[in-house]
Amino acid sequence: MNSPIRVTVWGENHHENSERDRAGMAERYPEGMHGAIASGLRSLLGDQVEVRTATLDQPEHGLTEEVLGSTDVLTWWGHARHADVDDAVVARVHQRVLGGMGLLALHSAHFSKIFKVLMGTGCTLAWRNSADTELVWNVSPGHPITQGVPQPIVIDEQEMYGEFFDIPAPDEQVFLSTFTGGEVFRSGCTWRRGLGKVFYFSPGDQEYPVYHHPDIQRVLANAVVWARPEVSEFVPPPVVNMAPPVLVGGTLAATQPPADAR
Amino acid sequence: MNSPIRVTVWGENHHENSERDRAGMAERYPEGMHGAIASGLRSLLGDQVEVRTATLDQPEHGLTEEVLGSTDVLTWWGHARHADVDDAVVARVHQRVLGGMGLLALHSAHFSKIFKVLMGTGCTLAWRNSADTELVWNVSPGHPITQGVPQPIVIDEQEMYGEFFDIPAPDEQVFLSTFTGGEVFRSGCTWRRGLGKVFYFSPGDQEYPVYHHPDIQRVLANAVVWARPEVSEFVPPPVVNMAPPVLVGGTLAATQPPADAR
Amino acid sequence: MNSPIRVTVWGENHHENSERDRAGMAERYPEGMHGAIASGLRSLLGDQVEVRTATLDQPEHGLTEEVLGSTDVLTWWGHARHADVDDAVVARVHQRVLGGMGLLALHSAHFSKIFKVLMGTGCTLAWRNSADTELVWNVSPGHPITQGVPQPIVIDEQEMYGEFFDIPAPDEQVFLSTFTGGEVFRSGCTWRRGLGKVFYFSPGDQEYPVYHHPDIQRVLANAVVWARPEVSEFVPPPVVNMAPPVLVGGTLAATQPPADAR
Amino acid sequence: MNSPIRVTVWGENHHENSERDRAGMAERYPEGMHGAIASGLRSLLGDQVEVRTATLDQPEHGLTEEVLGSTDVLTWWGHARHADVDDAVVARVHQRVLGGMGLLALHSAHFSKIFKVLMGTGCTLAWRNSADTELVWNVSPGHPITQGVPQPIVIDEQEMYGEFFDIPAPDEQVFLSTFTGGEVFRSGCTWRRGLGKVFYFSPGDQEYPVYHHPDIQRVLANAVVWARPEVSEFVPPPVVNMAPPVLVGGTLAATQPPADAR
Repeated sequence: MNSPIRVTVWGENHHENSERDRAGMAERYPEGMHGAIASGLRSLLGDQVEVRTATLDQPEHGLTEEVLGSTDVLTWWGHARHADVDDAVVARVHQRVLGGMGLLALHSAHFSKIFKVLMGTGCTLAWRNSADTELVWNVSPGHPITQGVPQPIVIDEQEMYGEFFDIPAPDEQVFLSTFTGGEVFRSGCTWRRGLGKVFYFSPGDQEYPVYHHPDIQRVLANAVVWARPEVSEFVPPPVVNMAPPVLVGGTLAATQPPADAR
Repeated sequence: MNSPIRVTVWGENHHENSERDRAGMAERYPEGMHGAIASGLRSLLGDQVEVRTATLDQPEHGLTEEVLGSTDVLTWWGHARHADVDDAVVARVHQRVLGGMGLLALHSAHFSKIFKVLMGTGCTLAWRNSADTELVWNVSPGHPITQGVPQPIVIDEQEMYGEFFDIPAPDEQVFLSTFTGGEVFRSGCTWRRGLGKVFYFSPGDQEYPVYHHPDIQRVLANAVVWARPEVSEFVPPPVVNMAPPVLVGGTLAATQPPADAR
Repeated sequence: MNSPIRVTVWGENHHENSERDRAGMAERYPEGMHGAIASGLRSLLGDQVEVRTATLDQPEHGLTEEVLGSTDVLTWWGHARHADVDDAVVARVHQRVLGGMGLLALHSAHFSKIFKVLMGTGCTLAWRNSADTELVWNVSPGHPITQGVPQPIVIDEQEMYGEFFDIPAPDEQVFLSTFTGGEVFRSGCTWRRGLGKVFYFSPGDQEYPVYHHPDIQRVLANAVVWARPEVSEFVPPPVVNMAPPVLVGGTLAATQPPADAR
Repeated sequence: MNSPIRVTVWGENHHENSERDRAGMAERYPEGMHGAIASGLRSLLGDQVEVRTATLDQPEHGLTEEVLGSTDVLTWWGHARHADVDDAVVARVHQRVLGGMGLLALHSAHFSKIFKVLMGTGCTLAWRNSADTELVWNVSPGHPITQGVPQPIVIDEQEMYGEFFDIPAPDEQVFLSTFTGGEVFRSGCTWRRGLGKVFYFSPGDQEYPVYHHPDIQRVLANAVVWARPEVSEFVPPPVVNMAPPVLVGGTLAATQPPADAR
């Protein structure tokens, strides 16, 4: 476990370049949101990670077989252009997660193809954009992802995401968020899928500088370490024909189990 | 499943009689909190239930072998006098839950002996009593306990219970509450213990008339139906000595499973 | 909850008609596997259900909007022709499950499009066809699906399905199966997806008369009752723009959240 | 995370000294079962751990405040003398687990006071002692506890533990075991309790040399690393009175929640 974690930070890179948002983005995120996320990971994790970025506009969205083949943890931010992500790339990322790669799905990635495929649900939610204060509460204080942040994390201004959030019951509920309007959201959730780990974390938005928030950066850094694969090499789980039985000669006993066995 | 559900509503019945609280309680809960809870169940469930009450000051706290032996679902409200509940009665209730009886642990019952015994954790939480508004959000809209109530349930004035709530991860997270101060609480949680079902529900307090709230009454009625035992008779789970093997003659095959079997 | 549960039993109906299997199938399942499953449900549940069947070869595979719109619980058996199921029909079934319809995925349906879409994993497993004895163990004796069957259920001859089974962690683990060869399989699993409930149950195969086994029929009947929707009408979960905050300035807003926000 | 994990291996040390078992134990476990377990951890984890042992017959069973205060992970093996463990020591261990210490409950520790207190259930099971072969199947191949062992682990001779095992639904199901007789057992299970992690692992017995089995030693070593506390210092979770609201009038209050709020 001593080699660096190879992280690929994927960004849609749309708001950064769209006519409507370009000016504000340049102020909040001069290196793009993906740049800010990558920067936070590098500065908090140092030698523990090797971080690169990839974006939608690159060939194969920057997620070639070669890139994925050398990625331990992928972070995903998308919003306006989910539909433009090539299904073949989604299938490739999906297989790689099943094979052990960690995935951090961030904020509006709740509607990304890859997250929806992994969840199997609609991933709908309630929302409002009116600069609510978001409080992020730690409900799993023994979990590695929640170490080193205050209770609660305070985000002065943020988009509201609220329940009902149509996701499978998380394997672990890590954070819950509340908003000025009184809403609640399951903002930090983990699931295993195949050999891989998935972390959904909602704080973070293109209109607010949330990815510069030190506590949010800490959570993302913790999550990268947590999501690192446990297995040394990635093999998509095969259908195995178990030719030889492990035990032989087993036949049904004349005597059934005792009637009182529940 | 057609015979009525036999419900015993247990109340500590302390605030109702204490010098400090008697006057206010008489106004809010002239028949005691247990009376109000029983009333709500009778009025919403009618012939589906047979409801009686039991209180701390009765012999064996009203929870004799006979009473428990004819109880399908027990609701529990306690606050100031948890320590006065006899350990033998707690053990009896515990066995009965493991044998299939449903248990609804209400509000400050988070610190009751029976709830702590069933959880195995400290059951600590954050709290404040300053008439916060509580919003109770449904995060499991397909669950029977959440049917027929608005999103969110609004309680105008209520004590705040907040995270971190030291409980085992719920088997099902049903409701989440938020408060005026921005706090969050896992206010509706289910667990199985043995053959029995447990529902913890935090709304409800001696200083606020929460048990007259129609939506809260609906949740409690739903929960009683949900908690009804599935098994027809209660047998404490025994240690079973499985004398006869079910399969005989099984011996280890010379050939191990294929190397590629993960 | 007193109107009958409307069940649609879906069968691939391939082995019943293929040159290779026709003769044996006619002996084991003269009315098809779907016919045997439907029969078992009718005989055990009587007036509680209205059961019809649908098959792959019918227009829209027998699963038109109208049929699904009047189906409370759908059972699904497929094996050799998963790929021939129209994606549009799969999407329609998927939406209906998210909206509240129950789904029973049976045996080789682990590889059906609808099950894989709902799980988000590869759904691979280990297998062997050599007439193993299968023992089906109840690990949730308080669960409604496990009532009325012996511990274990004994299936004299059956195909072996073994671990690792690549599924998300079940919300509830209900049955575990063992086989003559010593293998184990998570053979009875539940999940919620959206407002709907999903039950996967592996016992049942075209080469063995498992769907005539009274204990297997009992499990399927229990599961149909369990999977019945809790919600009275099906509405696919919308994205709700929560325009008015619920709390304004720390007090309750006049305007409640929109009525359609569940 | 670079300081060694401080492990205390607790053994009942009864069979090792009882007239009936002494001779056989001296052969199988010349340094006691606790000695064998400690040895396996030292040899597999080297500098990553500092391992010591403690036994029932020592003052305070070797689990003084000082010892527990410097223990990161405690392993527990007991069988014949659960009742002789002092309740005050159990309470101390319990608090320490809630505060973050990892606990490995081994084999017949399913009936130990500390495990039963943490579970809240009866912890009953089915069993038979007739030298069954046990196969330990990995059902969570991405989990750190299951790395580096074959599928399945084969134990030539072992006591049978079978379902129904009366435990709360595990947070994570890691291993399932089958036996020559066809029984199944949830043999590797994890739960969080408070800030601490609990792993139950059934393989291991006084009559069979299971703790010398290299794969079983590997699982225990993996589990020690997994169970290591995430929090840097142990504070029993307090009841926190959240005096100042976090949001006042819909905006962030000057006063943050108290520093001791976890």
